[in-house]
Amino acid sequence: MYRTHTCGELNLANAGKEVTLSGWVQKTRALGGMTFVDLRDRYGITQLVFNNDADVALCDRANKLGREFVIQVKGKVTERTSKNLNIPTGEIEITVNELNVISESETPPFLIENDSDGNEELRLKYRYLDIRRPQLRDRLIMRAHIIRAVREYMDGKEFIEIETPNLVKSTPEGARDFLVPSRLQHGSFYALPQSPQILKQLLMVAGMDRYYQVARCFRDEDFRGDRQPEFSQIDCEMSFVHQEDIFETFSGMISHVFKKVKHYDLGELPRLKYHDALKLYGSDKPDLRFDCKIVELNEVLPASEFGVFNTAIANGGLVAGLNAKGCATYTRKQLDELTEFVKVTHRGLGGLVNIRFNEDGTVKSSVDKFYNEEQLRQIGKVFDAQKGDLLLIGSDKISKVRKSLGDLRLELAKKNNWIDPKAWSVLWIVDFPLFEKDEESGEITFAHHPFCSPHLDDMQYFDSDPTRVRAQTYDMVINGNEILSGSIRIHQRDIQARVFGKLGITPEDQESKFGFMLNAFRYGAPPHGGCAFGVDRLVMLLSGGETIRDVMAFPKTAGGRDLMMDAPTVVDKKQLDELGISVKA
Amino acid sequence: MYRTHTCGELNLANAGKEVTLSGWVQKTRALGGMTFVDLRDRYGITQLVFNNDADVALCDRANKLGREFVIQVKGKVTERTSKNLNIPTGEIEITVNELNVISESETPPFLIENDSDGNEELRLKYRYLDIRRPQLRDRLIMRAHIIRAVREYMDGKEFIEIETPNLVKSTPEGARDFLVPSRLQHGSFYALPQSPQILKQLLMVAGMDRYYQVARCFRDEDFRGDRQPEFSQIDCEMSFVHQEDIFETFSGMISHVFKKVKHYDLGELPRLKYHDALKLYGSDKPDLRFDCKIVELNEVLPASEFGVFNTAIANGGLVAGLNAKGCATYTRKQLDELTEFVKVTHRGLGGLVNIRFNEDGTVKSSVDKFYNEEQLRQIGKVFDAQKGDLLLIGSDKISKVRKSLGDLRLELAKKNNWIDPKAWSVLWIVDFPLFEKDEESGEITFAHHPFCSPHLDDMQYFDSDPTRVRAQTYDMVINGNEILSGSIRIHQRDIQARVFGKLGITPEDQESKFGFMLNAFRYGAPPHGGCAFGVDRLVMLLSGGETIRDVMAFPKTAGGRDLMMDAPTVVDKKQLDELGISVKA
Repeated sequence: MYRTHTCGELNLANAGKEVTLSGWVQKTRALGGMTFVDLRDRYGITQLVFNNDADVALCDRANKLGREFVIQVKGKVTERTSKNLNIPTGEIEITVNELNVISESETPPFLIENDSDGNEELRLKYRYLDIRRPQLRDRLIMRAHIIRAVREYMDGKEFIEIETPNLVKSTPEGARDFLVPSRLQHGSFYALPQSPQILKQLLMVAGMDRYYQVARCFRDEDFRGDRQPEFSQIDCEMSFVHQEDIFETFSGMISHVFKKVKHYDLGELPRLKYHDALKLYGSDKPDLRFDCKIVELNEVLPASEFGVFNTAIANGGLVAGLNAKGCATYTRKQLDELTEFVKVTHRGLGGLVNIRFNEDGTVKSSVDKFYNEEQLRQIGKVFDAQKGDLLLIGSDKISKVRKSLGDLRLELAKKNNWIDPKAWSVLWIVDFPLFEKDEESGEITFAHHPFCSPHLDDMQYFDSDPTRVRAQTYDMVINGNEILSGSIRIHQRDIQARVFGKLGITPEDQESKFGFMLNAFRYGAPPHGGCAFGVDRLVMLLSGGETIRDVMAFPKTAGGRDLMMDAPTVVDKKQLDELGISVKA
Repeated sequence: MYRTHTCGELNLANAGKEVTLSGWVQKTRALGGMTFVDLRDRYGITQLVFNNDADVALCDRANKLGREFVIQVKGKVTERTSKNLNIPTGEIEITVNELNVISESETPPFLIENDSDGNEELRLKYRYLDIRRPQLRDRLIMRAHIIRAVREYMDGKEFIEIETPNLVKSTPEGARDFLVPSRLQHGSFYALPQSPQILKQLLMVAGMDRYYQVARCFRDEDFRGDRQPEFSQIDCEMSFVHQEDIFETFSGMISHVFKKVKHYDLGELPRLKYHDALKLYGSDKPDLRFDCKIVELNEVLPASEFGVFNTAIANGGLVAGLNAKGCATYTRKQLDELTEFVKVTHRGLGGLVNIRFNEDGTVKSSVDKFYNEEQLRQIGKVFDAQKGDLLLIGSDKISKVRKSLGDLRLELAKKNNWIDPKAWSVLWIVDFPLFEKDEESGEITFAHHPFCSPHLDDMQYFDSDPTRVRAQTYDMVINGNEILSGSIRIHQRDIQARVFGKLGITPEDQESKFGFMLNAFRYGAPPHGGCAFGVDRLVMLLSGGETIRDVMAFPKTAGGRDLMMDAPTVVDKKQLDELGISVKA
């Protein structure tokens, strides 16, 4: 037997017991005729002690142990003289009488501690060493606990876990498919699923009533930001439900997870309409851990010659701002930084007007030329500005102003530590539009995906004013991250065909890409809806990770490479020949 | 709200209650002024009744309902006059006062009942209708329950569920890889994993101690028999263990599953050595639900001029047979069928000698010319032959005789109903060889996979007599099916390199294919071992399915096609261009 106990479980209650432990050498130190070794495994660290007086040879061998050696020891549990009450095993140590080295270790390429000296590339290459760091190890364990809590809840609600295939049909749903050449049918390809969307809907047509799966999804996108080519989602679908049933079920689920994993009571989840979210927070995934709403000024601006604002309003644009509480003392440099922040390409505002309500009662502004003090105070009232506050105001097209101020709001919160790190903001965003119009091309595209059911009340605008049609679509947002997305689905063949048509999918393409789904609706489709939780992001938030790579065992780089395995790689020509494909020169 | 209850939960305790139900019309029948509708959902069937006297119009509409219409009804729970005690809802019916048709249905292409008139191809095409059949639906539900029981057990034993990637490196492990072309690195390919074998071993090196996953595996093989291109395995690995720890852990797991899902107590699992399994049952996955062992005769055959037996023995072959209890009355035709059975190509015996111990006390044989009655009775004693028994004896190369008699044993059991359908045979096969020698080429190949640890006692034969080296490898066999396979792994870099070398893998290939694994063993690898359960086959056995297609939601055909989605398909040239590949003419 390699061990009688793990390195995390012995304590004073075991004193006097003869035990066998196995694990990794975290560190050794010789001290006045004694050698101490911290022995580590997944469960914790136990201190070993070797006494020079008792056994010189054994103590000598202990002194030669290197970091990360795998050893087995036998000895007696003894009360420590100097206790470490920070760890569960800190009141005891093992007085060792037998030592076996199971595997030696070369010097690891980086320090195996939370504050490692290895950069991420090196740590990805040696991921099996990186995972030994307590932080990453504990995040992977928390991931398992979160998924277990989800399953517990779903199983209790009569959801059935069903595995759907990973070799499916290429049906562009928005992102690019990974393809898998077929050997038995040269020239044909499977696709890896972007999500089990259609299959879970067919499971509802099949009468399975309540389905879930921790589903692997694949998207061959450029891995901008924090994306991975494959990721996991908690994929759910239920029949005979309205939106309210979904809100109840999945509010319950997230509350269960928070209770189980964070011992935190979420309470009732607020709901915010999509348009209100944009209007108030400039984002459809607002972080409500702090206030600082956007204030719109079009209707309340005092008359002035200030052309920037007047032009924006005349062109159907928006003048709006934020009240940066307590920031009136910002220096010129700080104000310039904020201006630069909203001017970068993807925000694209022309600049920011600032109005400072100083502690001494004066009001100063970057547009003193155009607004007198009374007018500035009038604007201040709209923001409920107090002494010490700073107003930041922008103007341009509506979407650009909202986006910029939404981002600025987050930036201000970060700079000013407005966010309580222990607070949680979990809410539903509802009433998304069914369609969006591309600002450049004017083309109609879907806002979520083409299977979302319109609000039946809005079908009257379907042809006349399609972007006015609301969808029965909802997101769950946690601390400003979209964690869940879902909808009531279309279960009527005619409505599905109309939506496809509006998206410019020809009847021929509808038949070849989605024929099997439209066909299924001929045979008694139940009303149904569902959602998908992004596992990686959820775990990242709950475990305090900074990227989703921090919560995946073997993630890929931004370039889609696995540095540990060294994948992708070139393959034998024979393999390609068998598949009937060739690589272009 | 679409429903207050499901179709499986109402009973006499609910009598008098006003309820709302939704579901599918299983069938309708008009009977003396009443119309009865069986309303079905995943949970059961509830009888609806429409009374012509009470509401002619409503009753008329009920009469027009077609099979598989989705409807919603409101009404009162009423005690039935003629009860059906075979179903939980059989004592009540719903007296309907409101009927809403939610979705109509065209006539389904086959009967949605357990005994369907649709062939498998048709049912695969309309899988969403096939799953409505109670048998398939219940198997999918049992699948979820089995996996849930597995997780319950594993979670309770401190195993951590970890998801490993599906886009990995092509490292031929025996089967052919599915490849995924990389768009960001033209000419390079990911592979879909044949199993997470190496990754789970690296998780042990990473110190995760106990890992499991319901892992999707992919093998691009020709789908002979009951194979699928993708399948699921319960993949497990543990550190600091010997074989005994594995046996204990996974005997416990399978017992837990049987108890939870079948309410069946497996008791202690027997173990059989690989060589004994071959010798006694002609198979390394013997079905022990019946006895009928192979009896070897080389040492006990009476002297005779019978050349067939004599030659076999002289050539180092085997003479062995079975006692087909109670089959002495087999007709000439039946005996000929058995002879043909062992003569087919993949068995290839020359024929079968039979000896009949008739009820009247006489002994007859197909080799009366060569053996006198006393000699036949002497042979009979070795088989413990009684009146009414039939001995069937063959001779040839050892492997051929064992294989043929092993198959014959199963065939006899089938023909004679020797197997109690309620019995279970669950056992461990142990002490597999590490290597096998190809009978044709004489090449050494691995018996399981190249990561299995040899019995260290047998390392003395590693170079001199490699096929004599036993591996620390084990299978679990249920009713004659291999359900689990596993081993203690090699964790020593030098032994792993020796095994690779013996398999003819050059040092260069070791480095390019497995370098990351050999490297990992430099940094303190713990002893470890594990196994993988075939989910599909396990569920098939427990649910009474005949093929693994019977326990998968969306299986593929023998040609690897998904008939419902119509995959694989040709894709746009643009997609191939992006991937930098082309299809060969």
